Amino acid sequence: MSDNRELSTVLPVAPSRGRLRPLGLDEVRITGGFWAGRRETNANATLAHCRDWMERVGWTGNFRAVAEGRIQHDRRGREFADSEVYKLLEAMSWQSGTDPSGTLDHDIAALTEAVASAQEPDGYLNTAFGHPGQQPRYSDLEWGHELYCYGHLIQAGVAQARAKGCEGELTKVARRAADHICATFGRGGIERVCGHAEIEPALVELARLTGEQRYLDQAALFIDRRGQGTLADGEFGRVYHQDDIPVRDATTLRGHAVRALYLASGAVDVAVETGDEELLAAVIRQWAAGVARRTYLTGGMGSHHRDEAFGDDFVLPPDRAYSETCAGVASVQLSWRLLLATGDPRYADLAERTLFNVVATSPAEDGRSFFYANTLHRRHRGAVPAPDAVSPRAESSLRAPWFAVSCCPTNVARTLAQLPAHLATADDQGIQLHQYADAEITTSLTGGHGIAFTVRTDFPSGGNVTVRIDRSPPDRPWTLSLRVPAWTEGAPAHLVDPDGTARTVAPGTAEVTRVFVPGDEIRLELPVTPRWIAPDPRIDAVRGTVAVQRGPLVYCAESVDLSDGRDVDVVRVDPSAEPEDGPDGTVIAPGELVEQPAADRDAGWPYRPLDRAAVSAAEPTGIVLVPYNSWANRGPSTMRVWLPTTETQISEQAREQLGEP
Amino acid sequence: MSDNRELSTVLPVAPSRGRLRPLGLDEVRITGGFWAGRRETNANATLAHCRDWMERVGWTGNFRAVAEGRIQHDRRGREFADSEVYKLLEAMSWQSGTDPSGTLDHDIAALTEAVASAQEPDGYLNTAFGHPGQQPRYSDLEWGHELYCYGHLIQAGVAQARAKGCEGELTKVARRAADHICATFGRGGIERVCGHAEIEPALVELARLTGEQRYLDQAALFIDRRGQGTLADGEFGRVYHQDDIPVRDATTLRGHAVRALYLASGAVDVAVETGDEELLAAVIRQWAAGVARRTYLTGGMGSHHRDEAFGDDFVLPPDRAYSETCAGVASVQLSWRLLLATGDPRYADLAERTLFNVVATSPAEDGRSFFYANTLHRRHRGAVPAPDAVSPRAESSLRAPWFAVSCCPTNVARTLAQLPAHLATADDQGIQLHQYADAEITTSLTGGHGIAFTVRTDFPSGGNVTVRIDRSPPDRPWTLSLRVPAWTEGAPAHLVDPDGTARTVAPGTAEVTRVFVPGDEIRLELPVTPRWIAPDPRIDAVRGTVAVQRGPLVYCAESVDLSDGRDVDVVRVDPSAEPEDGPDGTVIAPGELVEQPAADRDAGWPYRPLDRAAVSAAEPTGIVLVPYNSWANRGPSTMRVWLPTTETQISEQAREQLGEP
Repeated sequence: MSDNRELSTVLPVAPSRGRLRPLGLDEVRITGGFWAGRRETNANATLAHCRDWMERVGWTGNFRAVAEGRIQHDRRGREFADSEVYKLLEAMSWQSGTDPSGTLDHDIAALTEAVASAQEPDGYLNTAFGHPGQQPRYSDLEWGHELYCYGHLIQAGVAQARAKGCEGELTKVARRAADHICATFGRGGIERVCGHAEIEPALVELARLTGEQRYLDQAALFIDRRGQGTLADGEFGRVYHQDDIPVRDATTLRGHAVRALYLASGAVDVAVETGDEELLAAVIRQWAAGVARRTYLTGGMGSHHRDEAFGDDFVLPPDRAYSETCAGVASVQLSWRLLLATGDPRYADLAERTLFNVVATSPAEDGRSFFYANTLHRRHRGAVPAPDAVSPRAESSLRAPWFAVSCCPTNVARTLAQLPAHLATADDQGIQLHQYADAEITTSLTGGHGIAFTVRTDFPSGGNVTVRIDRSPPDRPWTLSLRVPAWTEGAPAHLVDPDGTARTVAPGTAEVTRVFVPGDEIRLELPVTPRWIAPDPRIDAVRGTVAVQRGPLVYCAESVDLSDGRDVDVVRVDPSAEPEDGPDGTVIAPGELVEQPAADRDAGWPYRPLDRAAVSAAEPTGIVLVPYNSWANRGPSTMRVWLPTTETQISEQAREQLGEP
Repeated sequence: MSDNRELSTVLPVAPSRGRLRPLGLDEVRITGGFWAGRRETNANATLAHCRDWMERVGWTGNFRAVAEGRIQHDRRGREFADSEVYKLLEAMSWQSGTDPSGTLDHDIAALTEAVASAQEPDGYLNTAFGHPGQQPRYSDLEWGHELYCYGHLIQAGVAQARAKGCEGELTKVARRAADHICATFGRGGIERVCGHAEIEPALVELARLTGEQRYLDQAALFIDRRGQGTLADGEFGRVYHQDDIPVRDATTLRGHAVRALYLASGAVDVAVETGDEELLAAVIRQWAAGVARRTYLTGGMGSHHRDEAFGDDFVLPPDRAYSETCAGVASVQLSWRLLLATGDPRYADLAERTLFNVVATSPAEDGRSFFYANTLHRRHRGAVPAPDAVSPRAESSLRAPWFAVSCCPTNVARTLAQLPAHLATADDQGIQLHQYADAEITTSLTGGHGIAFTVRTDFPSGGNVTVRIDRSPPDRPWTLSLRVPAWTEGAPAHLVDPDGTARTVAPGTAEVTRVFVPGDEIRLELPVTPRWIAPDPRIDAVRGTVAVQRGPLVYCAESVDLSDGRDVDVVRVDPSAEPEDGPDGTVIAPGELVEQPAADRDAGWPYRPLDRAAVSAAEPTGIVLVPYNSWANRGPSTMRVWLPTTETQISEQAREQLGEP
């Protein structure tokens, strides 16, 4: 690892060393295309939507109720409601860092004032505990979320400082809270951990911001304590809180998915700052095992509804896939940290997949309703939740405006607000492009040589990425690295040098090293034709099916594209022919619509002796598929990502095998 | 429906009318074979096991703590812990009704005394509510389980009265409680329902016992109130409590499975006693839809872990199948009531399936540990729970001796204790045999003619059932009906008359009508050869697999039968050949063991572009299958019921399709 001596100040994650150096929100601008649209909706609709809902449901009011001594009567929301206000403040802060208009300053100031008013003289800050008539401070570390809430407070405080270039009021509140935590949970204090990880990456980031070693030391203490069984064993087991096995001994991602991924992010942060290669290797191992065996095609993580947790290896049912939006956000956070630490492009591969198929799926087109869970198969149309109602249930609704547990909207908001920072990094050799979007990037090479370049692309609709050099030192060669996504396996990508030389580039990284001249263009051509994807045979739940992916986008069949009100369970596809591009970003898959089982069968028992002679009538057709991230934007529908293949109807197979007509 | 004027007094369910008249525990004895062994273990091990555990964990002590005024300090267990003591009392009472030795009398008296000591003067009886320092009575109808507990108390009181032939102390406690309920929840009182149905069938049974109309009226009130939204909407929705739709309007089984099935049982009871054909038809419709679309091959019901609930139609994942033991018990209860009301043999079909594959699966061979959930696919061996520890988690362990929520052991115990009553019924034409076991049956035909007969069978190992007439009126013809199970579809059964005439009998009912003479033998020959079973194609989770059933027994592959420590995920079966009987009750299925995916694949990403040339090496072999109800009796293992077929490896299929070598 090399030192990061020339960091931007507007960085969501600012490791002091690592294989790659992140670029700040002041260095990377997204100027158009898929993500620009999403970010605009986020800035113009989602931030105010979250602000208004939290005022309406009383979560911001909780802080004022503490200040006015009436919290024991007036508290609203679940025990972790404070954190939503902090996550919104973080989102607003990063957004303000890319938007010089100052339109968010008033909201940030008002929310900060409310938060600050609830802080106790000793730094304690939580609206659910510790006041007259409430449970005592830290009396329920398993479920109380006090340290979790501090974590989001601190991340908001860091964001405010970095976006504005100086420590503001929220940063001061965060520092007082962090000092209180160090005093309370340090050696000889409460030697336990929080049931929900989050304080760990937050304290490291505050240490990075302030240079205060004690915050890093406290984060390292929390990482080392995890897995020692300091939390009570409960219905979901200690594995739920990752308190079953020490972080450096664990071999895979497990337990509650968001908790697992926040903890792993904090462990990477501690490992990087302390040079703890063993700890970093442990997280890399867990990530690899979790991605190979416990991750949905969309990048979604966590298959269990019951405990919002990772399932056993290969338990990845598409119907009732949980794939919580927040787990997607957390996975992107973890992959980003591992990318910075190691430079390995597979982390950017997973981030791309998760951004396009989980993070982008959650919000509706208008940015005012959200999927909490992101199932890969929906069996009933359901109803669109009312725009003015809090959804009590996360799991089974279509996109809803707000939830009783509403962690996802603010998590999407803060991710989109900081997204430009995920596009590119630097090292001593040059610049690395990880994610493709229309962008303008202005930064300095190691040693201070200023460079600037523009990215133009139609990605992910198309696969052409053009980088035009706008500024570059006249006499210093440097390397532009471009990620060649893993999904190009078997469908080669090409790189065209500034002199027009084209070459095939394999999944991984493609590099151009030269003395660049303003006007130089480098072109990456990615094959975004639709392709069949087959699952590992150990994923039993999708046996006999294939999916379609086009570039990084996972596609799905949606019942609104079928005639006669038919449901997606009649769809069969024929993988002996190829799916093709259809109009308006759709894909047309060769297949057929089978008849529903006869009514008499339906009235009985769904398991019958194998009938080798049974034949299912089918109607050959092209099946319209749409990007998964756009589903349910045309009203209620049924949907499926994994499509049964025509060959897997057992009775027909057996018939062929027996040579019968 | 006809009146039941000649009922035995030792009846678990004693409808005053219906298509069939149940026979009592004094009329039917199970004398040998599969169920005799299970009942012996239940009587000799399980009852004492439950008694000792409830003493140890303090659930019986709760009653004494109420009597001694210290319950607010000393209460142990969850809010419904009282009900376990009642269910044990019910089990002991039915067992004592078939066991004249009186060995259980002391236990019954001691437990009854403890229970009675906690009853308030006004009949209120619950150790979790209503005493100083506790929540007030009926302050949490959604989750408090007070009426649910009364339901089990009343069923125990009924059992005690029927087993002993007179109302004992427990019956008096139950009547006082029922009077209190009528006073409190009648018209003008608390016009709501309990979050967990159970009081409904209990009150009807008490009305049947005592002839008191007001208990039936109160049960009918509760049935009519359900679905009116008198319970708060919560995280799982009102559907969880079946409070979303009135009982007579609902079209399928839904929500929490045990709740749904207890409620449906109570609705049948009310419908039968009040002659409410509409209500009965509603439950029949719900049963049919639930069985056709929401039931596992084992008869197990409820696929969700999160809310222990029915999933959407056809959401029946075999891994993490919940299939709670108590839902199996409840399903048998419902099917029994529908069988008595209608005479339709399909209810006995489902009861048989559920008894052999859910109820019989739960207890270990020694009757001292139990499955709570009955998954159809276990992916990791796990560890056997310690014999002296309470398992905090129901869902993922192997059989455990006791659970924090320990509803299943006592439910299995009371079901096995009353099992003889499920074997046969009577009507004006004669006798119906529904379940096959070695048995001696002594009863009277309508009009008082005494008959007796003996059943001898090797079922379910073999398929021969012989009924020998021991006593019969010399001049009166009557009809012996024998159920021909639905699983004989396509593999005909035969019936041999006393004169040796054999005929093929179709699924449904086979009848012999004649003047029987002592010594007459009727033989039913059921085809119990192993057969492949294919699932409805809409059950996505088991696409491309088949299962094996042999008679009513579902079979499974277990890793202890594979060599080299291999896991069941290497098993593929070949349905173009037939499974055959193996030694010791096993089945040998033609198939192969495939190689595990290569290590490099495992290190990466489990979804790859479809590779039409890939071939998987495999080792042809016979796959040993064992009855599902015996699995995990040989130590930890992985297991699966649904076995992937050799044809479903997509790459091989595609290769064949393309005509490549």
